[in-house]
Amino acid sequence: MDSRRAESFSDGVFAVAITILVFNLLTIGNSKTSALTWDTLAASWPSYFAYVVSFVTIGIMWLNHHGMLAQVRLVDRPLLVLNLALLLGIVALPFPTALVAEHLTGTQPPGADVAVVVYGINLIVISAVFGSTWLYVARHARGLGGSSQVRIVSWSTLRFTAGNFAYIAGTLIAAFVSPIAGLVIFGIVGVYYIFEHLPAAGDAGDAGG
Amino acid sequence: MDSRRAESFSDGVFAVAITILVFNLLTIGNSKTSALTWDTLAASWPSYFAYVVSFVTIGIMWLNHHGMLAQVRLVDRPLLVLNLALLLGIVALPFPTALVAEHLTGTQPPGADVAVVVYGINLIVISAVFGSTWLYVARHARGLGGSSQVRIVSWSTLRFTAGNFAYIAGTLIAAFVSPIAGLVIFGIVGVYYIFEHLPAAGDAGDAGG
Amino acid sequence: MDSRRAESFSDGVFAVAITILVFNLLTIGNSKTSALTWDTLAASWPSYFAYVVSFVTIGIMWLNHHGMLAQVRLVDRPLLVLNLALLLGIVALPFPTALVAEHLTGTQPPGADVAVVVYGINLIVISAVFGSTWLYVARHARGLGGSSQVRIVSWSTLRFTAGNFAYIAGTLIAAFVSPIAGLVIFGIVGVYYIFEHLPAAGDAGDAGG
Amino acid sequence: MDSRRAESFSDGVFAVAITILVFNLLTIGNSKTSALTWDTLAASWPSYFAYVVSFVTIGIMWLNHHGMLAQVRLVDRPLLVLNLALLLGIVALPFPTALVAEHLTGTQPPGADVAVVVYGINLIVISAVFGSTWLYVARHARGLGGSSQVRIVSWSTLRFTAGNFAYIAGTLIAAFVSPIAGLVIFGIVGVYYIFEHLPAAGDAGDAGG
Repeated sequence: MDSRRAESFSDGVFAVAITILVFNLLTIGNSKTSALTWDTLAASWPSYFAYVVSFVTIGIMWLNHHGMLAQVRLVDRPLLVLNLALLLGIVALPFPTALVAEHLTGTQPPGADVAVVVYGINLIVISAVFGSTWLYVARHARGLGGSSQVRIVSWSTLRFTAGNFAYIAGTLIAAFVSPIAGLVIFGIVGVYYIFEHLPAAGDAGDAGG
Repeated sequence: MDSRRAESFSDGVFAVAITILVFNLLTIGNSKTSALTWDTLAASWPSYFAYVVSFVTIGIMWLNHHGMLAQVRLVDRPLLVLNLALLLGIVALPFPTALVAEHLTGTQPPGADVAVVVYGINLIVISAVFGSTWLYVARHARGLGGSSQVRIVSWSTLRFTAGNFAYIAGTLIAAFVSPIAGLVIFGIVGVYYIFEHLPAAGDAGDAGG
Repeated sequence: MDSRRAESFSDGVFAVAITILVFNLLTIGNSKTSALTWDTLAASWPSYFAYVVSFVTIGIMWLNHHGMLAQVRLVDRPLLVLNLALLLGIVALPFPTALVAEHLTGTQPPGADVAVVVYGINLIVISAVFGSTWLYVARHARGLGGSSQVRIVSWSTLRFTAGNFAYIAGTLIAAFVSPIAGLVIFGIVGVYYIFEHLPAAGDAGDAGG
Repeated sequence: MDSRRAESFSDGVFAVAITILVFNLLTIGNSKTSALTWDTLAASWPSYFAYVVSFVTIGIMWLNHHGMLAQVRLVDRPLLVLNLALLLGIVALPFPTALVAEHLTGTQPPGADVAVVVYGINLIVISAVFGSTWLYVARHARGLGGSSQVRIVSWSTLRFTAGNFAYIAGTLIAAFVSPIAGLVIFGIVGVYYIFEHLPAAGDAGDAGG
């Protein structure tokens, strides 16, 4: 299959997944009986926080996904399977986002550690599938119509691995130290990747355009 | 109409349908009063199971849909009608997915057999429309700008038929033996199709690129 | 703006609007306490009926929308405004669909006539905006890079007008005779347009490929 | 990255965000016990009003977004970050839309001023990010493969700034005078931009075809 078609379907899934994150916000202050005050809105800060962290995370995953598929011109069956697994994980992300929004603070029903650990496990799984997909792309780039300069032991590989370790660290911190600290780490990973410039073939070529 | 435009609209529908499957998960552990525990999350395993089965099913249907439309360059009115009927079935899939998520186990309100049978009927209908669409494409491939080597009595035809029989078998097993076993069969059908490589013209040409 | 970009955005909106129709089904049988039986499912037939009517309606509107924009190569500001108005009406359609699903039969809370009349008004508005857009396209086809053979007094114009009259008739019947009969008429209009072949320039050219 | 791919992803997000505005309408008249009357429907006018204002707002933002990206052929990392920030704001818009729908009138739970001010703040943030993105595009147009005639001190810059001031004015009026008046101003800004014709390079070129 032409890689652009797989990309276009994936883009659609990313776009829907990133947009439905707002559903977690739609229940704030929508009581039919009680007044809307700044205090009501302020008390829901975990919802906004979880919204931003998940938005940034899905956003950078979309960017990385593009960077990855830009290396090849075709996708074969195993790559499509890996891609579906990746999307399965990304589409699931609104679920732990909702858990975090409902349980992060002491004034909410207990379970902050469980919520953030589930969030972290989801991120670790996505990140691991991402790493596997990258390794597959790097190994088969030539056969998939890509350029030959993709190397397995490279900055990009290290980079995906580093993200995975950061997610594992954040999950452990959420479980044993502080759920909020864990979530902050997930957010920092996202922000870091947004500002980091990957010196990869595709992107560099684009920017030099 | 150019087949790429029909494909692009269909892709959008597939992408939205596959993404909104997560809505079934968003009600888990979102009580405003009770704590979030690992037990709460574990008790919702039918929701995760149904999510994965439906995700894989819609995923392979997207793949097959592409493989089918890749045979032609144009779509005529009857093909558009068949395509709409196909999408009508696929968009409906989150409905039985929700039924299964709510009723699969003995600790949930009764109705597991009804839920999985409705799920199976939905799959059978989609599968039957898929088969009809395939037959139409195979018969009119030349007139629709496709290559001439599409044969009606072929591996692909057999393949779509086999899927249909497997869905019927799973539905009967769900009705008379075990709902969970029926759902497992639906999942196996999906996984089987993901890993099976169709030696069709379009795909082979792509992969050989 | 290139008409393909307006079409691609519109396609996205159509795809999402047609897919979220399933949300009306997700509340069926999802009680946490009562069993799922075939009777429960059968009692919700207005939901399935409304789902199919709205699906077919949005589906044919997507087809007509394509046929219309295929006449031109560019869209100007007034056409974009008309297009946005059209999408505003189409995106609203799940709202009366939900009303119909909740109030169509005597065993539901009263209001079937109100529900179907609102549904009909929505269809009339969409249909009127569609007709206006078509007239605009026909009048400005040359300036928008289209072929010169689009005539204002034509089969297509008559066709859009006929649909509008059928929607008005259905709405009146829903208000004064029978809500269900009105809804059936809306469904028939959709099915009729699906099978009718428009002998327009763009489509004919496509089909002749 | 090619600007068309960023545009295509953004288009998807715009399309989903504009479509899910209808969710605010789906709760109207869907009580399982009470009748549906014209009074029930009429009492929900703030929901329709908020729906139209947000629809028009997201619609013109999509138009402006296209006009902006049409200036360049490539997007670099900072532009992608700005674009993600823009989408983050636009995806959030259904949230204040829901607040307004629930609290605008005296017959609803109090909080109209809070609701419209939150709506206004969201618009101001979007508008400010839009202005920043425009400045970035104008400054780096040449390096991003754009034409050279984009000037920073221009009608377009003034235009984005004017919108921002109008949103600030509306928010202040909502806070200290009348929430409804504030919302009306937001709607007027949208309608104004729809009908205003931007004499920008890309659009003019398109229209001249």
